Amino acid sequence: MDRTADLPAIRATAHALADAARGVTLRHFRRPMTVDSKRDDFDPVTIADREAERTMRDILAARRPHDGILGEEMGATPGTSDLTWVLDPIDGTRAFISGSPTWGVLIAVQDADGPFFGVVDQPFTGERFEGAPDGATWTRGDDRRALTVSVTERLDRATILSTFPEVGTAEEGGAFHRLAARCRLTRYGLDCYAYALLAAGHVDLVVEAGLQPHDIAAPMAVIRAAGGIVTGWTGGPAHHGGRVIAAANPALHRAALEVLNG
Amino acid sequence: MDRTADLPAIRATAHALADAARGVTLRHFRRPMTVDSKRDDFDPVTIADREAERTMRDILAARRPHDGILGEEMGATPGTSDLTWVLDPIDGTRAFISGSPTWGVLIAVQDADGPFFGVVDQPFTGERFEGAPDGATWTRGDDRRALTVSVTERLDRATILSTFPEVGTAEEGGAFHRLAARCRLTRYGLDCYAYALLAAGHVDLVVEAGLQPHDIAAPMAVIRAAGGIVTGWTGGPAHHGGRVIAAANPALHRAALEVLNG
Repeated sequence: MDRTADLPAIRATAHALADAARGVTLRHFRRPMTVDSKRDDFDPVTIADREAERTMRDILAARRPHDGILGEEMGATPGTSDLTWVLDPIDGTRAFISGSPTWGVLIAVQDADGPFFGVVDQPFTGERFEGAPDGATWTRGDDRRALTVSVTERLDRATILSTFPEVGTAEEGGAFHRLAARCRLTRYGLDCYAYALLAAGHVDLVVEAGLQPHDIAAPMAVIRAAGGIVTGWTGGPAHHGGRVIAAANPALHRAALEVLNG
Repeated sequence: MDRTADLPAIRATAHALADAARGVTLRHFRRPMTVDSKRDDFDPVTIADREAERTMRDILAARRPHDGILGEEMGATPGTSDLTWVLDPIDGTRAFISGSPTWGVLIAVQDADGPFFGVVDQPFTGERFEGAPDGATWTRGDDRRALTVSVTERLDRATILSTFPEVGTAEEGGAFHRLAARCRLTRYGLDCYAYALLAAGHVDLVVEAGLQPHDIAAPMAVIRAAGGIVTGWTGGPAHHGGRVIAAANPALHRAALEVLNG
């Protein structure tokens, strides 16, 4: 569907959300904070997560009352339009509570076909990665650059990233490490920042498993707008989460899928 | 030895080195660059590494001609004083070539007893972590804070970091993972930034193996000045490199050594 007419209003609202979340998260980053765990195996959530999502939901209620919302901390709020805002107030809460500047605020807008607009914002470095139907851009203060993926087509020249070295189940981890062994360089621990670096052309593959829709909607919109490819491990749609691969270009994507499914 | 009299001159020179290295490294960061490998298994070195060390050596030749230099890229240059400047122009070259803002410029000054002054500088975030006999400080532009380690004394409340999940040899990796399994949270991939986060109280343990002296001299000076402990895995001196553990406090250090050597 053509979203050209909606785009200025969507973009303005997305940046208002990102600006507000920046303020909330930075007020808590590297400060003493309460960490809860959502599950027994330490899935941390902070007061900053909840406050940032609340703040973004309040803005959406005022500016986009007809759109739906799917948020990590507060679940799904149905709308009456065909648009849903997908929010992850802090992607990389483990990085956040460790003081590392590689977490991000994720904001995406999707319709029945999936996300078509996304923002990955890193408040501490002041970087904002945006992907939209009219292109992909990186901004930091007054600096602005177009985002373009790398031209690396060979696995043995590629840098591959994943957040956790275990990468999901034992079977998923096995497939990942088979692929990583074919790549030049493997790095861990960057959460959504990994996808942002792929959109910017600095790394070539991001492969993860066990993702939620809110983890991948915004990165997917940014990477696609920058020219890259995001699918499931068998090549199907990725925006429902699960096993996800992001690749800089079709040749690299094809080579990586062959090894993952080999 | 009391270094109080020398300290202002050492500090001024160290910051001149860090400022100069910041300019050189940022000129190359996230730009197309030549990556060489020092060994067959991809130990990357960039033109930015070499230029930054050359720039720092030129400043030292002019300002501190009697001191020795030990640099990652250009080796040891003996001096006639009892001081040696230990330089790692880009610690975390893999992070650097991947676009991640978690590498650092490491500058330390040591005598026969080891490093007593150190700077860990992250040019992209604009953060500088300094450790000296008169205290430890974090600066970013006009912001300035004292660095203080965490009070986490229990492994099951601790966050542990290491750069590579393999952590050296199979035996070293086994010991690390035995320890990590006792901790609340394990993170990878931050190089020298891990030590900086420990000095700032955000994480509690950093455990690595196979380090070179230039990898650990500056982090060690920063962490000690912030109240933390840096030793080898059996409790001996760490500034020669090899197997290194940094801990926020004595109780946590003791508990971690027990598991590492258990």
